[in-house]
Amino acid sequence: MNIMENTAAIVVARAALTRLMEPSDLAGLALIRVVGPEHALRVAKGEVRAGTETEHKVVQLLDEAGARSGWQGMEAAIGRWAPRVADLAPERDLGVVGRLGGGLLVPEDDDWPGALADLGLAEPIALWSRSPYRILPELSRCVAVVGSRDSTGYGASVTGEIAYGLANRKITVVSGGAYGIDAHAHRAALAGGTGGIPTIAVMAGGIDRYYPSGNEDLLRTVSQEGAMIAEVPPGTNPTRYRFLQRNRLIAALCAVTVVVEARWRSGALNTAHHADSLSRQVAAVPGSVFSANSAGCHRLLREGSAVCVTDAAEVAELAGASGEHLTDEQVGATAEHDGLNLEDLLLLDALPARQASPPEKLSAVAGLGIASVLAGLGRLELMGLAERSNGNWKRHKGPK
Amino acid sequence: MNIMENTAAIVVARAALTRLMEPSDLAGLALIRVVGPEHALRVAKGEVRAGTETEHKVVQLLDEAGARSGWQGMEAAIGRWAPRVADLAPERDLGVVGRLGGGLLVPEDDDWPGALADLGLAEPIALWSRSPYRILPELSRCVAVVGSRDSTGYGASVTGEIAYGLANRKITVVSGGAYGIDAHAHRAALAGGTGGIPTIAVMAGGIDRYYPSGNEDLLRTVSQEGAMIAEVPPGTNPTRYRFLQRNRLIAALCAVTVVVEARWRSGALNTAHHADSLSRQVAAVPGSVFSANSAGCHRLLREGSAVCVTDAAEVAELAGASGEHLTDEQVGATAEHDGLNLEDLLLLDALPARQASPPEKLSAVAGLGIASVLAGLGRLELMGLAERSNGNWKRHKGPK
Repeated sequence: MNIMENTAAIVVARAALTRLMEPSDLAGLALIRVVGPEHALRVAKGEVRAGTETEHKVVQLLDEAGARSGWQGMEAAIGRWAPRVADLAPERDLGVVGRLGGGLLVPEDDDWPGALADLGLAEPIALWSRSPYRILPELSRCVAVVGSRDSTGYGASVTGEIAYGLANRKITVVSGGAYGIDAHAHRAALAGGTGGIPTIAVMAGGIDRYYPSGNEDLLRTVSQEGAMIAEVPPGTNPTRYRFLQRNRLIAALCAVTVVVEARWRSGALNTAHHADSLSRQVAAVPGSVFSANSAGCHRLLREGSAVCVTDAAEVAELAGASGEHLTDEQVGATAEHDGLNLEDLLLLDALPARQASPPEKLSAVAGLGIASVLAGLGRLELMGLAERSNGNWKRHKGPK
Repeated sequence: MNIMENTAAIVVARAALTRLMEPSDLAGLALIRVVGPEHALRVAKGEVRAGTETEHKVVQLLDEAGARSGWQGMEAAIGRWAPRVADLAPERDLGVVGRLGGGLLVPEDDDWPGALADLGLAEPIALWSRSPYRILPELSRCVAVVGSRDSTGYGASVTGEIAYGLANRKITVVSGGAYGIDAHAHRAALAGGTGGIPTIAVMAGGIDRYYPSGNEDLLRTVSQEGAMIAEVPPGTNPTRYRFLQRNRLIAALCAVTVVVEARWRSGALNTAHHADSLSRQVAAVPGSVFSANSAGCHRLLREGSAVCVTDAAEVAELAGASGEHLTDEQVGATAEHDGLNLEDLLLLDALPARQASPPEKLSAVAGLGIASVLAGLGRLELMGLAERSNGNWKRHKGPK
């Protein structure tokens, strides 16, 4: 995609590194930071030695990231990468993705999503992308809509309402391409899109695969009208580890992560926790207390780690740095006694509906002095709330 | 009720004052604080003059309460009380309530609920009570369960579950005796009670009346097995103003106010705001985002003024100062891969389900060095997650 803007060598090297190293291989990522992708690839392949100074800097980066615990030295890391060296064919991978209408986004691109820097050392090596769009939307224009695979009808309805409404506001709906809430989110966003990228599916496996296979048609459409992205190269299977890592990407790309339905233990909560630890907004949709599929959402609300949201406008408001998404203050029917002072409210309460009363009686009923009653009756009459007949008073139904 | 423990004169004076003064008549309450109930009654009836020093102290109390704004002097206050002097018959009122099996609780009683002091100057003059119990439960044993009159089937179910569960834990369920959520709360608490006062109905009108009339049977049972209380004397009609003041009493008596169902504008939210301003816990039950009857609850959750609660155990936990109500941590089914370290998780992901693989292949698939793979396979085998055959490895379904 941006091959022309970068030296092809960097893109090829990063493409290769995504195959050697699992997502969030912090030792590998530190090595790339220290010596750059091309030299890092040569070290990783065992073609050159890292050298003491490089290894020292890698340790320093791991220390800064608080990630030293798993570190057993550069030799062990190279041993981890070695079994995959024989499979390396980055030009072939780039060709495969190119024929699918995609390419590789690398941090050296001007268009590289700045939001990913918040991941620190765990910022991905590169992003494989299938999309008609060259540029991913900025953080404040992306909202993650995630939830259970076994969603209920309720979850489907709320997801539809929220994702459609977001896409309609030109906010990109990011999800994981799975069954259930994810699929409803992608579908509704595709339907609601009015310009810009309606939806992005962040995959745990390669973007040349439709996983799960039942979502093949949906994911193909997402790749044609939105974007499919992944940090792992084409041909890669999704694994539990890659699902968890994928969740961190979803969280990092989005200003808000909305959990629509989640059980007490749910992958969606993992995404929410990533978002929380990145200081992104987390929101949860409430539901029936009798629905196990809302228990995870209620858990987030109860722990105070999520904001309660009920529609697209509230979600957009959370995302929007500017005021453009501010929800209209929801207004209930105003009652006729709104704005009355305390004494007039007491007096209004005391006014009979049918048989009119003299001010002296109103005074006793309302517990107000006669002067207050007379002044108040004048005000209520003006507001069309009191009606006089022969010096007695009763309620006038409804303001004039 | 506690007539024998106090001078009868104080009880009679406070009984009379509850008829002269509306709830939260701060000037009247300040006067009572300054000169005591008996002298205050004589001043209120215009039999004696307050005197400059008394008036000065009243102003001081109103200032301290930030309630000076409505103050127009003692003369105006006496003018407000005067129209009701002719109706005074405190001995008759005490007789009426006595025949109903009740009496008057006054702040001079040892058993006066200490929690009401948090209302400051707005602490009620006295409480009219109909109950077989002499003593109201302490703050931490009372939970308010409130909500819409037009409750849904969902609201009724949740209210029933929560109120029954609270009464079952010997926590008193306090509500307003109205239709809908209030009635469900009283009913379920009566059913769930296992000792102590199961439920208290705090009335906006006199406790000799069953309001609303459709709840007559329920309220009679509440007065026989729980308690009906009010700060207004027998024969008093409920008014809008008295409903709002009644809500402050509910909030003040309870450690937690739970809003089960409430529209965007609802009296239940008024109770919640009273509770909040008294630094009591406010809790809200989530529901469908498509239900207008949950909009008020979601508003409280969204504004961060309420904690999300889904069952009686969670509510009891909020109320309990001691640990006795702590909920059992809800536990989902544990997954077989719980507790695995990162490398073993990667390895487990790489293990084929059917055709066993050699360690070298697993090393490439998992992205782990061969030493890590061999050590990890040993650990997984011990946990019953991996199975070897002829030097090759595959998954073993389920732990031993």
